Formats: sequence, C-alpha cells, structure tokens
Amino acid sequence: MSYFSPSIEKLIESFESLPSIGNKTAIRLAFHILNSSEEETNNFIKSIQDAKKNLKFCSKCYNISDTDPCEICANSSRDQTKICVVEDVKDVVAIEKIHEYKGLYHVLHGSISPMDGIGPDDIKIKELLARLMEREIKEVILATNPKVEGEATAMYISKLIKPMGIKTTRLAHGIPVGGDLEYTDEFTLGKAFEGRTEL
Amino acid sequence: MSYFSPSIEKLIESFESLPSIGNKTAIRLAFHILNSSEEETNNFIKSIQDAKKNLKFCSKCYNISDTDPCEICANSSRDQTKICVVEDVKDVVAIEKIHEYKGLYHVLHGSISPMDGIGPDDIKIKELLARLMEREIKEVILATNPKVEGEATAMYISKLIKPMGIKTTRLAHGIPVGGDLEYTDEFTLGKAFEGRTEL
Repeated sequence: MSYFSPSIEKLIESFESLPSIGNKTAIRLAFHILNSSEEETNNFIKSIQDAKKNLKFCSKCYNISDTDPCEICANSSRDQTKICVVEDVKDVVAIEKIHEYKGLYHVLHGSISPMDGIGPDDIKIKELLARLMEREIKEVILATNPKVEGEATAMYISKLIKPMGIKTTRLAHGIPVGGDLEYTDEFTLGKAFEGRTEL
Repeated sequence: MSYFSPSIEKLIESFESLPSIGNKTAIRLAFHILNSSEEETNNFIKSIQDAKKNLKFCSKCYNISDTDPCEICANSSRDQTKICVVEDVKDVVAIEKIHEYKGLYHVLHGSISPMDGIGPDDIKIKELLARLMEREIKEVILATNPKVEGEATAMYISKLIKPMGIKTTRLAHGIPVGGDLEYTDEFTLGKAFEGRTEL
C-alpha cells in the first residue's frame, strides 16, 4: 500500500530501482529532489542526458569515452607496445589510479562464463586479436579478475596469443599490502608462496 | 584528478551531490545509468520531471500531493475534528503507516529554532490557527519531534491554542516496544516513569 502521492511514489520507485539504493534512501533522495531548486534538478537531469548522449565506446580499446579514440588511445606519449586487457571500464580507472602503467588498454566487456552463456565470441577477444595483428605489440598484460571466469578468460587469450610470439603476463597474486597472514584465505596464501621472490 | 571521461565524471558528481551517496555508490549508479536502456533512462528522468511538475502543497494542511486539497483533506470519511500537527511531510507517512489515526494533518514545514534563525512566522503556525478558527476542531495532537526544537514548537503552539478551548495533546514518551531498559537513555526512562500507567 502506498502512503505517498502517485508522483512521489513513482519517483521513490525510480530511485529504488537503482543498485544499492533501499527504500529509506530512495525516500530521502526523492525528497531531496523535491526540495531542490529548478536549476539543480535540471542540472541533474542534464548530466544524465549528456552522459547517455556523449559517451561512446572507443573503436580501438572499447573503453567508454566522450571522444573516439579515447583519451588514452589518442595519447601518443603512452607506450604503444603494451596492452593491458581488462574485463570492465571501471578496471581501467582502477589501474590508472596507481600511476604505474603507461601503456594502452583493451576492455573485453565481460569474461568467458559458460554458466551464464557467455562464450569467447560475446566479449571483445576478436577485436583484441585484430589489434595485435595490426601493430607491433610487445606485451599483453592479462588483468582480468582473479576469479574462475577471469582466470579462464586469461588462459583462453594467452593460448591464442602465445603462438604470435607476444609476451603475455598476468598480475601477481599474493597477500594484500597491510594484510594479515592469519586472515588471508588459503588460495591467496598458496599463490603468495608460489610467487615468493628472493630478497 | 579525474580518471573518467568528462561526461561520466559529471554524472558521478551529480549522484555524489545527493544525500547519503558516497563516491563508490555514485560510480556504481553512473555506470548503471550508462548500461540502462534508452527507455529506462527516459522513465527515470520523467519520474523526476513529473514529480517536480505535479507535486504541490495542499492549501489546507501543507502536505505535499498531486492534488489540492490532498487525498487526506479530500477524504470526507476521515475525522474532520482532529488535526495532527507534524514538522515534515515524511512524518505524515510515518503516522499513516500505523493505521491508527483517522483525523487530518497539518504540516509545519519545520520547527521553531532560534539557533537556525527560524521563528514562529517561518513555519505554518499562522495557517494552523486560521484552520482552527474556520472549523470546529476538537483536538490538536502535537506530533512534533521529541527534540528541543520540536518540544519548543509544541509548547509555543499549545499556548496559542489553549485559550481557544481546544484540547491539545502530545505523543507519549517512553521505552520503545521491544526495547531494553538497560540501553534506554536516562531522559526517555525518566519520561517513561513519569507517564507510567496503572495495570
């Protein structure tokens, strides 16, 4: 049963349909919108419309961007011989934040997951291979997620790339910095042992 | 420094400006919008626009509503001799949810708070008095919040109303149902003692 007027109810439902927004937060957000000025509301709506209108996929790396090619592909000062392969646009941002990697990216937009009916043809693997043929690439860093699907995707891609004589690497597994041995799960600890380095 | 394209950055900022939305949630919401269909996005925008356009204050009780008078004021089956005075529109909903009260409401849109420069003229007290003159009201329930400002507002209003011979009541204070004596603050416990009832 609804206790609000239809228009508020509709607005609350709209907010509730967003991820990680529960009923209480949706009500708070709806009333925030109602109490906002006309201009604030219009700016909010405009930012949504602009984002939907302006953003496109980079035709090279499939990152999302206002421009095509994206800022990273268009930046000639970046190392054009390295490609870091990630599952998602958000992973590009995560890696950019560490200011460590200066090469290019390739966004797969998913990972191979037979359980969900996602095969190699459903993600941007063909497009990656096309890029590798086109230009001389020296290293492909497979930065898919350290989960079953991400590992499978990395294995699949590395098998395709190795015959091309391109170096393929995978991000290291190990104990998180500042982490605690006691609370590290056995798989991570196992990987940390495997990958131990000499001092 | 920004790692996202300008349009995404703008959208994330828009979401971040909403109450109780932090950076991580804003990013999640922005990408949810980007991954939504054209139709879903348009529905979301429409719900905001409709709410801003359709909602108005009820000219009687100052509740927010698609209609004027609001559904509650327009409902003749409700007890027209009782008015429950609340600070906020959300309080109307909170009280409606208990299905206990069948009278009318009056939304003050705030409480007297000299610290914030809000005096009796800044909230809908005059309008309440006008309603009390207009029609025969038997009881005014002062359901302002049990905080300093709410208490002061209730005191102020009751002093104005009492000479009119209208019964004024205040919601009971006490231990919450299912609550724990041990964890009840001393003020509430004091009020619970004061208001104890005979079995």
